[in-house]
Amino acid sequence: MVVHVLRIGHRPARDERVTTHLFLAARAFGASGGTYTGVRDPSVEESVRSVVSDWGGGFSLGFTESWREAIRNWEVAGKVVHLTMYGLPLRQVIEAIRVDPSDKLVVVGGAKVPGEVYGLADWNVAVTSQPHSEVSALAVFLHELHEGRELDAIFEGARLKVVPQDHGKLVEELRRGV
Amino acid sequence: MVVHVLRIGHRPARDERVTTHLFLAARAFGASGGTYTGVRDPSVEESVRSVVSDWGGGFSLGFTESWREAIRNWEVAGKVVHLTMYGLPLRQVIEAIRVDPSDKLVVVGGAKVPGEVYGLADWNVAVTSQPHSEVSALAVFLHELHEGRELDAIFEGARLKVVPQDHGKLVEELRRGV
Repeated sequence: MVVHVLRIGHRPARDERVTTHLFLAARAFGASGGTYTGVRDPSVEESVRSVVSDWGGGFSLGFTESWREAIRNWEVAGKVVHLTMYGLPLRQVIEAIRVDPSDKLVVVGGAKVPGEVYGLADWNVAVTSQPHSEVSALAVFLHELHEGRELDAIFEGARLKVVPQDHGKLVEELRRGV
Repeated sequence: MVVHVLRIGHRPARDERVTTHLFLAARAFGASGGTYTGVRDPSVEESVRSVVSDWGGGFSLGFTESWREAIRNWEVAGKVVHLTMYGLPLRQVIEAIRVDPSDKLVVVGGAKVPGEVYGLADWNVAVTSQPHSEVSALAVFLHELHEGRELDAIFEGARLKVVPQDHGKLVEELRRGV
């Protein structure tokens, strides 16, 4: 199952770090790519590109003008999960989403999510019904979707690799194949 | 087990939204309070206070000048978990942290975490060894620590409460007891 993250309504400056964190969390927890709408922001794209270049994997990030089109295009072959605190509790729906073999678009709001998104989504999922963060909602959703297996993921083509330590930091620099 | 979150090195403006998201995630995933160091930021405090006032629970947020003192004070009676991509894999250590009955201080870095923190921590824990976000790291750590039970938490004294919907938004306004 391919998982792709759609971030709606990015505003440069104000959202820069949260959107960057969102896509880095998407990558770290097993999504294969992301798309955002709103206003194009080279600094987000550059931060994500730089992490992929150092730490590997195939995560790709794109921008599109229309969230509606992005969702409708996806729905031709895949299904849509919208993360919102107003949706159904995660544990009530996660099993159905997991066993559904189609690729998933995970839609994550920014400032204001148009009401239409709730209608277009196959599942509106609440990762708690409390206000917190799209970053935490996405990470916990993906962690549950993959049942924790994403924690063991290998990121191919990395230049850097952490060697886990109980106290301290150790980063290996890897030689890249040609 | 009481869980408290310590955010090190907050910088107003640059970190405002990420730190706010961090403490809202702390609250939503079952921490009972937070403390931050760096530069004091009334807008973070006000955002968190406003969520607690609307959505309930007893989450409290404080500021302190010295992270070193905060950690050392905590260590008198509790233990310290430092979330860092350089630490030991979550699944390798979470069971030991879960069964240890002492209260936990979860330390989360900002821009630059002093090397001393790695030494002071009882556990340095990597929620993936990939760069992503302190917000996602904290949420997944707390979700694993509480084995998902935090998703069913009741927030006492809430003024607002979501009524989960498959498509749409429904928020109940509750009358407060005197």
